[in-house]
Amino acid sequence: MTTVQTQAPTHQELYFEVLQYYARQMRMLDDRDLAGYAKTFTDDAEFDHGAGGEPMRTRAGILRGLEEFHEQFETDPQQRRHHFSMVDVQPQDDGSLRTSCYALVLLVRPGQAPEIRSSCVVSDVLVREGDQLLNRSRHVTIDGRHG
Amino acid sequence: MTTVQTQAPTHQELYFEVLQYYARQMRMLDDRDLAGYAKTFTDDAEFDHGAGGEPMRTRAGILRGLEEFHEQFETDPQQRRHHFSMVDVQPQDDGSLRTSCYALVLLVRPGQAPEIRSSCVVSDVLVREGDQLLNRSRHVTIDGRHG
Amino acid sequence: MTTVQTQAPTHQELYFEVLQYYARQMRMLDDRDLAGYAKTFTDDAEFDHGAGGEPMRTRAGILRGLEEFHEQFETDPQQRRHHFSMVDVQPQDDGSLRTSCYALVLLVRPGQAPEIRSSCVVSDVLVREGDQLLNRSRHVTIDGRHG
Repeated sequence: MTTVQTQAPTHQELYFEVLQYYARQMRMLDDRDLAGYAKTFTDDAEFDHGAGGEPMRTRAGILRGLEEFHEQFETDPQQRRHHFSMVDVQPQDDGSLRTSCYALVLLVRPGQAPEIRSSCVVSDVLVREGDQLLNRSRHVTIDGRHG
Repeated sequence: MTTVQTQAPTHQELYFEVLQYYARQMRMLDDRDLAGYAKTFTDDAEFDHGAGGEPMRTRAGILRGLEEFHEQFETDPQQRRHHFSMVDVQPQDDGSLRTSCYALVLLVRPGQAPEIRSSCVVSDVLVREGDQLLNRSRHVTIDGRHG
Repeated sequence: MTTVQTQAPTHQELYFEVLQYYARQMRMLDDRDLAGYAKTFTDDAEFDHGAGGEPMRTRAGILRGLEEFHEQFETDPQQRRHHFSMVDVQPQDDGSLRTSCYALVLLVRPGQAPEIRSSCVVSDVLVREGDQLLNRSRHVTIDGRHG
């Protein structure tokens, strides 16, 4: 009798999946699809953006927090771009992934040269729901802020 | 009877291939190997660099356009570096790939600090000819330009 | 009779491994874990950081060179971030890897905006010892320095 089993993804497969996930996730944020971005967090997720204050909690809470934060862009139009790089993926025994990467946040105001808004380290816990990855948590530290 | 089939590449395999392809393609451009760069486009390719004007068309037309554009660097020596990141790869049913990524264009003049020339979004259609990928089209939008 | 062989890793597997390796290697440097970073070089490695002078040689020599270089940061606190991108991996017949990538070196001083310190091209020879990659050599060229 043969039992067909779904093989656990290899470290390599998970690595590419994370790169692909981040590309789509952060594009949603930069395109200001806040609802889409919030949906990349689990219902019980925690998100600490590193700029001070309590972490945002729950998907609904994260969406509210994002909407408040993005209000400033109504009167100060700008394109933000989150470039993630140097991604480290550490698969955990429970199937979750601990990941860490650098983030360069670029800001472009109409007609102006791009500026680097911040240099950050992003530490995530990613889990699988159905066939896709979601953030169970995200903790951001911003370089130079607590120096 | 067993039929040996070449399996279609997985999303993950394609993702890796695109990263490797971009590294070599853009290195050619930054090294000013314009002929090499032009050869990464199909004969009937279309390339819109986002700075205005009609898109360049055909491989020969793209090479001419690149040569004209690069003439300015003869009197203003500079090293440009195209950093692609946040690559999103969407395999299509016809075997082509729709990809999208961020591009950070860096410029370094001799003895000066690097500056960010532009922040762009690159949207490509990649096709396979023989065993390698080529650009059937490339459309670039430059952040802040139409703000 | 079937001979079970360990298959040589594919280009794709090597590519992923290099990305993962760089993420951890450069994080050690940016976290100023100089001993950890030096251990990513082979005993007989050569490291030319591109800023002039003789290349550093041997793992012990590299560690000494790094310690001297990092002394300046004691009186000028700063967070450096090495962003590698556009990684090109060329597997060699002897099992080593020739890799090349761009490096963007960011510097953040406490309370200040991030600045781009340098734009570099990194050329490595990576070899496998046991089950991990190590640098047998690293040669860095800094854009604009010899313009």
